[in-house]
Amino acid sequence: MAADYGKTFALWREGAAIPWHDYTHHAFVEGLGDGSLPRASFLHFLIQDYVFLVHFSRVWSLAVVKSETLEEMRICAGTVDALVNHEMSLHVKTCAAEGIDEATLFAATEAVENLAYTRYVMDAGLQGDFLDLMAALAPCVMGYGEIGLRLANSKTGDTPYDDWIASYAGPEYQEVCTNVGAMIDNAVARRIGDLPNSPRAAFLLDRFSTATELEVGFWQMGLNGA
Amino acid sequence: MAADYGKTFALWREGAAIPWHDYTHHAFVEGLGDGSLPRASFLHFLIQDYVFLVHFSRVWSLAVVKSETLEEMRICAGTVDALVNHEMSLHVKTCAAEGIDEATLFAATEAVENLAYTRYVMDAGLQGDFLDLMAALAPCVMGYGEIGLRLANSKTGDTPYDDWIASYAGPEYQEVCTNVGAMIDNAVARRIGDLPNSPRAAFLLDRFSTATELEVGFWQMGLNGA
Amino acid sequence: MAADYGKTFALWREGAAIPWHDYTHHAFVEGLGDGSLPRASFLHFLIQDYVFLVHFSRVWSLAVVKSETLEEMRICAGTVDALVNHEMSLHVKTCAAEGIDEATLFAATEAVENLAYTRYVMDAGLQGDFLDLMAALAPCVMGYGEIGLRLANSKTGDTPYDDWIASYAGPEYQEVCTNVGAMIDNAVARRIGDLPNSPRAAFLLDRFSTATELEVGFWQMGLNGA
Amino acid sequence: MAADYGKTFALWREGAAIPWHDYTHHAFVEGLGDGSLPRASFLHFLIQDYVFLVHFSRVWSLAVVKSETLEEMRICAGTVDALVNHEMSLHVKTCAAEGIDEATLFAATEAVENLAYTRYVMDAGLQGDFLDLMAALAPCVMGYGEIGLRLANSKTGDTPYDDWIASYAGPEYQEVCTNVGAMIDNAVARRIGDLPNSPRAAFLLDRFSTATELEVGFWQMGLNGA
Repeated sequence: MAADYGKTFALWREGAAIPWHDYTHHAFVEGLGDGSLPRASFLHFLIQDYVFLVHFSRVWSLAVVKSETLEEMRICAGTVDALVNHEMSLHVKTCAAEGIDEATLFAATEAVENLAYTRYVMDAGLQGDFLDLMAALAPCVMGYGEIGLRLANSKTGDTPYDDWIASYAGPEYQEVCTNVGAMIDNAVARRIGDLPNSPRAAFLLDRFSTATELEVGFWQMGLNGA
Repeated sequence: MAADYGKTFALWREGAAIPWHDYTHHAFVEGLGDGSLPRASFLHFLIQDYVFLVHFSRVWSLAVVKSETLEEMRICAGTVDALVNHEMSLHVKTCAAEGIDEATLFAATEAVENLAYTRYVMDAGLQGDFLDLMAALAPCVMGYGEIGLRLANSKTGDTPYDDWIASYAGPEYQEVCTNVGAMIDNAVARRIGDLPNSPRAAFLLDRFSTATELEVGFWQMGLNGA
Repeated sequence: MAADYGKTFALWREGAAIPWHDYTHHAFVEGLGDGSLPRASFLHFLIQDYVFLVHFSRVWSLAVVKSETLEEMRICAGTVDALVNHEMSLHVKTCAAEGIDEATLFAATEAVENLAYTRYVMDAGLQGDFLDLMAALAPCVMGYGEIGLRLANSKTGDTPYDDWIASYAGPEYQEVCTNVGAMIDNAVARRIGDLPNSPRAAFLLDRFSTATELEVGFWQMGLNGA
Repeated sequence: MAADYGKTFALWREGAAIPWHDYTHHAFVEGLGDGSLPRASFLHFLIQDYVFLVHFSRVWSLAVVKSETLEEMRICAGTVDALVNHEMSLHVKTCAAEGIDEATLFAATEAVENLAYTRYVMDAGLQGDFLDLMAALAPCVMGYGEIGLRLANSKTGDTPYDDWIASYAGPEYQEVCTNVGAMIDNAVARRIGDLPNSPRAAFLLDRFSTATELEVGFWQMGLNGA
């Protein structure tokens, strides 16, 4: 059973079932779970993920610009600060241990699969409202939570990726997913009401599905980068 | 009876009845109608209105950025082109006759009432979606159409402002109002469905009301500028 | 002598000397300094300033969206978090003591002078780059730092506004001003080089001056609100 | 010798010589020139190019939002209108002849190479100023002009792609390139002055290079889509 990240997320996840499975059970993910992922793939992924976090922070900042309630502002502003002033440090530390410094990370050439994803999310926010942005942001936030939990629960021995799994399976990250999920439910209540019967349902699901497919491409890029 | 600019506009107009009356029956408007408006006020207004059109064109361009259908793109792109490459010329011509050239117009210092209005509309678009932007744009578009029609129908003799009135009462401008009104109705159908029963109804009405109040401030600024 | 908030700020401050003096020596400011400011004016200001901080946080979030270096991202993201998750609490506490709760603050009707200011800054960021946004943000950040310091240094006895003065004169807020000033100097080095000889110098100064004039309007609105 | 589209473009083109050659001499382009391009590739390209034009129009609209002079507003607004209300019709006509209607075009699933490109350009505009946006827009505008001219001049017999080539080699499109190039030169004069000695030179070139590489990916996507 998947974790409970709110009813809007559950609806989107079900509506995008096939890409969601492709994303959360990608070969890269399975390789993280059983430890078979080549180190070179992981490092390539990590460097790209750092650049991803740079733009992901910019996207969460756009969410503050688009907020209409105190709760939205607080959660989104807290997320930006956590990403920029804390979470990016984890990548920096892991990469430093492999001899890659932060200036190198920041200046790394973005893979097209990486660039496509973050810029799509940014434009979803520019074109639409707070919910369009959230539908495009949710796959990353909640997907990593779901993947982390599943891998942590199914793991049978030590692997080089235990730290990575633990950081997303841990209570702190799970709380982020729960809070973002609750905020999205409130944002739907405020802007739409009954989502399944709204004409926006299909458009928002399309945002969520497209972002999920872009996540699949991101894992594949990591795998190919070995 | 007011012109028919669509059912969404009718709903907003009724919901903001008091500021709408203050706006469409402002002393500046009445002075245009009976010709009693001092020429200095009119010129001050015209210069500010030129700067307003510069930013209004930028705002309609943001509407293209936020469009999600071909119809929305076509109407908004056509409006931008009409504003920038045609309508602004009318102001230039009138002002030229008074010895004020276009570079002077473009560089005129914006009155705070002017600046407040266009930047509020721009931010409505950045913060929300296409409809938030339309709710903030509608008072200007439709209000001038309604004022033009009323003044044209009630006028009893020639005044120095007949050309101004005729340009907004004329079939070309009235068609703009009708088309924008229909586009807004379609945008509501696509994004909301039943507007009066949507939780967004109050927020959109608030956008419309605030923009209407900023229109009142704009007329007053014109009057004070004599 | 004014505090040292960097050489770009010094250049802008000097270039906008008259509005800068009007802003930093406004009757509202002098009334804070000698304690003669009517309580009703202060409360009116405080409520409007809370709404100002809501939009100011959105504007600083746009600065993260527009950042191009890690330093810019970190300082701007930290500022957003400080504003949203900490600084706004000070206003909430002071207003709570007067029987005004936070929901009331968040929903307060914005004065037009308030709305004009924050939306102008937001649009400066949308229209231009990071530096256009900073030129429009600097008067508020640094102006309050300069006012706080001057009033703290010149004060001769206890007044009801000592806490307000102390919070802006204090080392924590002064450090914000110093850090933002250094970040602006770096942003100029990265994007322009020699500012006084750049064709952008006049445009950036115009942003700074306009924002400073909007600050004058904000104090006046506070005073009138008694 | 390449056509003269202004000195800023010449500088960027030279600075990105390798990707520029890969883009303007891509196998897809050569196939257009000698008529060997499979029809299926061309149609796949045409459908994706229609979706590209939708977002390209949105991007040029953002350029109006970011304009600071009348010339910038007029050229960008005219471009949006030409794209939305005229140029897209050419694609519609060609596709209609193959039995593909416009609703199908508008709703076509974007290839990731397509999505990556337009959203990158959009974000360049959101993150930076008018020039950042122009550096990311120039490769498409001028590249098609240069390709059209070269293929028209070197062609030895009739091919199924003569119309396509003629439309970009023709005086109307060439004038667009010349006007946009002159506008960019003016925008550089206004915002930078001496571009080669500006610290921004490297960043703007990076925008231009990245967009050029995304053009290479777009042709390849067309070729693969056969």
